[in-house]
Amino acid sequence: MSVQTLTLGQLKNDWAAIQEDALNDYLTFLRFKSISTDLKYKEETIRCARWLQDYVKQIGFETELWETPGYPVIFASHNGAGPSKPTLLIYNHYDVQPADPLSEWDSPPFEPIMRDGEVFARGAQDNKGQCFYVLQALKALLKHNPAFPINIKLCIEGEEEIGSPQLAALLKEKDKQKKLKADYLAIVDTGLPDKETPAITLGVRGIVTMEVRVQGSSADLHSGSHGGLVYNPLHALVEMLAKLRDKEGKITIPGFYEDVLEMTQKEKSQIAFDFDEKKYEAMFGVKSHGGEKALAPLERAWNRPTLEINGIAGGYGGIGFKTVIPSKAIAKISCRLVPDQDPHKIGNLVAKYLKEIAPKEVAVEVEIFNGVGKAIRANPFSKVVKAFSMAYEELFQKPCKNIFEGASIPIVTELAEVSQSEVILLGFGLPDDQIHAPNEHFGVDRLEKGFLVLSLAIQNLGNLN
Amino acid sequence: MSVQTLTLGQLKNDWAAIQEDALNDYLTFLRFKSISTDLKYKEETIRCARWLQDYVKQIGFETELWETPGYPVIFASHNGAGPSKPTLLIYNHYDVQPADPLSEWDSPPFEPIMRDGEVFARGAQDNKGQCFYVLQALKALLKHNPAFPINIKLCIEGEEEIGSPQLAALLKEKDKQKKLKADYLAIVDTGLPDKETPAITLGVRGIVTMEVRVQGSSADLHSGSHGGLVYNPLHALVEMLAKLRDKEGKITIPGFYEDVLEMTQKEKSQIAFDFDEKKYEAMFGVKSHGGEKALAPLERAWNRPTLEINGIAGGYGGIGFKTVIPSKAIAKISCRLVPDQDPHKIGNLVAKYLKEIAPKEVAVEVEIFNGVGKAIRANPFSKVVKAFSMAYEELFQKPCKNIFEGASIPIVTELAEVSQSEVILLGFGLPDDQIHAPNEHFGVDRLEKGFLVLSLAIQNLGNLN
Repeated sequence: MSVQTLTLGQLKNDWAAIQEDALNDYLTFLRFKSISTDLKYKEETIRCARWLQDYVKQIGFETELWETPGYPVIFASHNGAGPSKPTLLIYNHYDVQPADPLSEWDSPPFEPIMRDGEVFARGAQDNKGQCFYVLQALKALLKHNPAFPINIKLCIEGEEEIGSPQLAALLKEKDKQKKLKADYLAIVDTGLPDKETPAITLGVRGIVTMEVRVQGSSADLHSGSHGGLVYNPLHALVEMLAKLRDKEGKITIPGFYEDVLEMTQKEKSQIAFDFDEKKYEAMFGVKSHGGEKALAPLERAWNRPTLEINGIAGGYGGIGFKTVIPSKAIAKISCRLVPDQDPHKIGNLVAKYLKEIAPKEVAVEVEIFNGVGKAIRANPFSKVVKAFSMAYEELFQKPCKNIFEGASIPIVTELAEVSQSEVILLGFGLPDDQIHAPNEHFGVDRLEKGFLVLSLAIQNLGNLN
Repeated sequence: MSVQTLTLGQLKNDWAAIQEDALNDYLTFLRFKSISTDLKYKEETIRCARWLQDYVKQIGFETELWETPGYPVIFASHNGAGPSKPTLLIYNHYDVQPADPLSEWDSPPFEPIMRDGEVFARGAQDNKGQCFYVLQALKALLKHNPAFPINIKLCIEGEEEIGSPQLAALLKEKDKQKKLKADYLAIVDTGLPDKETPAITLGVRGIVTMEVRVQGSSADLHSGSHGGLVYNPLHALVEMLAKLRDKEGKITIPGFYEDVLEMTQKEKSQIAFDFDEKKYEAMFGVKSHGGEKALAPLERAWNRPTLEINGIAGGYGGIGFKTVIPSKAIAKISCRLVPDQDPHKIGNLVAKYLKEIAPKEVAVEVEIFNGVGKAIRANPFSKVVKAFSMAYEELFQKPCKNIFEGASIPIVTELAEVSQSEVILLGFGLPDDQIHAPNEHFGVDRLEKGFLVLSLAIQNLGNLN
């Protein structure tokens, strides 16, 4: 079967023709409150999955909805290129982060609106926007050819934001392993350092998350009558948390850095560690002066583990004042990990240390959450890296950089192992997209660029083999 | 005019006759959501004040509603005893604490229900219950005599739980000072050490409250992409808060203890400092092992200043997990004070120290709230103390103890000064009433005892002069 290779120009014309329809479908996708961490949204998240499965089917894929005790995984495949051609597995997710704090959104998070070419909504970038340009590229390629230049598989899950526990379980099943087998794996969930700089991502950090619970009295107490009598759980909590990092920004937990695999200088030389401090400050209103003081910014963000407090709750945090000594206080903690740190081992080290340093007047428990993930570092010399680099360079007319991402995609290591494929991470996120934060947004221009790069790279993979 | 002095037996019969009506009126009072700290309840709090004014008027008082930019103060007087008799000013408040956390109430906080002789509702004790037995005593005394044995004034305010800012402002007005003039002042807002032990309160601690706000980035950030880059405001906050107390439980803020007026051994000998550790632990599920380690429990709770964190909020504290580095974090802090600490001075010392120790990577501001109050120590040899001690001893058939209260009634010092009266604090609260906490409650038996003690003490004051 002869395959027509589309030029960049042809693809740009295609995008112009489909953009309006694509945008409408994208907005529909964004309206689903597919918040995986909160069971309140269970029905809507499942409706989102069904809608998406239908969308993929209409493009021309064979689809399966892999049901789980949590949210279903959409698996889709198109093997029209035949056994002589390689297979690319593309990973996305349809679930999103919670939208809190709601009061800080300029427009409702699940009523997408466009301002200055950017679509504002929870999930606009992470990961519905990224998922959507992938689907548009596949749709366009199939319009011109009855088959793709290579075989394509899709794996779109609904629990990435809670650490992919259900997909992780599915990956242990033999039939799923067989179905997911591929030559290349593209995780389309990362970004570019800035709008003008083409880049692919060669590594992400691992993650483990947990909740610390400190219990004092059996009920909240009046801070006047009991102040000076009980050991306030909030004091216990801040005293414990303050001990987790030293003055140099290093984590003080014994054994925390033990398994860190340092990059060689040769490895480092392949990665673009350059960092524009002024641009960062202008973008986020803060200097990049957290973490380990001895290290450069992107060294800290890409190549070193962290421990961050992601939330504290206890007592009265509302308007006005309440003179209470709360009976309990909690903190949410996450650690970002690098090769070869094991998430379970690190979680246990943190929990053990917190219990050791807890004042004996309070009771402390630590729950390590599911959805841990190991860090990954990809091979910079693989064919899939070459195919995507070529696509980026054709579109941007600039060399494509190799970067890392500090965030985690917990399933990536397991998915690469099970599919037995060479992995690449890519995407069109930008640092100020406000993912996981109020006013998340994604640009229509990036939907187009994503569409173009995916289309070109898939064609490149067909021609490279 | 000859005044009939009622015996304890007569008063008990009176209570039996009025109890049912009194209870019904009490429950109506409790249904008002008169939460002064939250403007959402503004209309209902004002309705509560109007209802209460009407109630006091129907008893036979001349009433005034002192309007303020906040909540009105109900002033009432009955001068039938005439100028040859002394005047007792009684203070109560109709506002209540917020009901959070709502999920921990066994029944809705503003739908009072009775279980085992206890009424459960927000404000059941603090202060609607205490206010209500005062009103019943006055009602009963007037039923038997066209006038009281002494002149009575009432001052019932609606902002005690936010530190009485409006009443404090009114106390600066000449005409209000004149109207409030009295010989004795009874603050009916405290409690007994236990059900069987009669006691009056000779002192309360002062208070100053504040909110610390730590600001990092301009928007919440993803803890993966930015972990290791920004200085997390939650880390800054816990590091600052952990430095406020040392290992011995002492406050580390320079100058904090400077103005503390130590009690003499003679003064201490008049106060019942005995403390039942086992009973405390059984009641609150926690040992009384907080605060300054070198001191005895009630020394810490009554006679020493404290600094307590009353709330922390920042990041995600809900169900599940959110991998966020919040842009800001806040803590609510209160200090309980003893003579001669000045609340403004202490507030400023805390604020100054917090700013000094704040990591320079974050911006810190501290708001000191209105509604500060000085501590008071009352004269144990005054006539009003004698009159109430006699009343307690007649009812309980036991010696009446002198105790202190660790909590604060911010307006008490100013009210005593303005009214030029000898002050006493009393009430029928018990340590496990859960005031300011879920499932606040007050016993019907204590409504009766309060009724009896107030009635007897007012008669005693008439006879002592």
